Amino acid sequence: MLPDPIQDLIFALERLPGIGPKTASRLAFFLLRAPEELSGQLAEALTELKTKTGFCQECFNITTAGRERCEVCENPQRDGSMLCVVEEPLDVLALERMGAYSGKYHVLHGVLSPIEGIGPDDLKIRPLVERVRRGEVKEVILATNPSMEGDATALYLRQQLLPLNVHLTRLARGLPVGGDLEYADQNTLLRALTGRQEMS
Amino acid sequence: MLPDPIQDLIFALERLPGIGPKTASRLAFFLLRAPEELSGQLAEALTELKTKTGFCQECFNITTAGRERCEVCENPQRDGSMLCVVEEPLDVLALERMGAYSGKYHVLHGVLSPIEGIGPDDLKIRPLVERVRRGEVKEVILATNPSMEGDATALYLRQQLLPLNVHLTRLARGLPVGGDLEYADQNTLLRALTGRQEMS
Repeated sequence: MLPDPIQDLIFALERLPGIGPKTASRLAFFLLRAPEELSGQLAEALTELKTKTGFCQECFNITTAGRERCEVCENPQRDGSMLCVVEEPLDVLALERMGAYSGKYHVLHGVLSPIEGIGPDDLKIRPLVERVRRGEVKEVILATNPSMEGDATALYLRQQLLPLNVHLTRLARGLPVGGDLEYADQNTLLRALTGRQEMS
Repeated sequence: MLPDPIQDLIFALERLPGIGPKTASRLAFFLLRAPEELSGQLAEALTELKTKTGFCQECFNITTAGRERCEVCENPQRDGSMLCVVEEPLDVLALERMGAYSGKYHVLHGVLSPIEGIGPDDLKIRPLVERVRRGEVKEVILATNPSMEGDATALYLRQQLLPLNVHLTRLARGLPVGGDLEYADQNTLLRALTGRQEMS
């Protein structure tokens, strides 16, 4: 019923996460009516996404293609003795937005997941171990997600890093700021209780 | 902080309706990790969207570029004496999906909206009046949205079409099928009551 060019766009949009058939057709018809400049801008950005980005050879964060190291790694102000290990480049962004961390990062690009067949060699774990072994790093902050896979990955990393005599920490668990005790789930509440802090 | 190619894509995605900064960056990072074929497919569909589509010269529904009339208008099985007037091409799609309408359509491409400066000449109203004046059409079903602007547009169309001695109808208002009386708003309930039907 729909002309092919629109149907093709709807099919392509439907493949994105969180976008179902209804949203896809709404977006397609919005783009159809919008000035040509908008769909052109999107198409260009999509084309350049893969060709013009690369990964930092030190921390595996994303960076502009052709540059060997990312902005954080190149910044001499950043403290190379602290390493925050995260799952995805988006996590680096969230921590940078906080503006209170002055160390460096290491992006794993995923978590261990036996069900999906993702083992240690599919993640950037070996480069992490080598990086720590070089000796500059004094503290490794494990900042994987507070999920089952994130916890399992953190435990595996602990096993790998402990022999290297480095200080290992994890992000604190507890009640989210602005959250409501009444609505906190059992696990979060248990973590908040066991990790309770001295008020001095 | 983010490399330009990703930031550009996030900015472009944010301009789409219903997509905020968080969703935009989630989508951008998804595309970054997804196989190149997906972003390529999207980019191509976006480029072809404007170049390979056009509007039916009779009902103003979208159609493949180069074709003068859309599938519905070209279909000799469709009843040319019935005309369903809708706001957008998506509305045609919804009515076609229903599968119970055998007449033709007329797409206005918007609604009257004095606040946004959209007057009768910005919509496909004149071609509609001309189409009805030609005499083939016996019934015009006004199927604008049940909103303030949709109602105002329907009233304006009534004014224009009444002198042409054509049968004018509107889509029924009432409780949506599968809905719950308890959650129906006052206006819908009022419409359902005043438009109540004989059970015979």
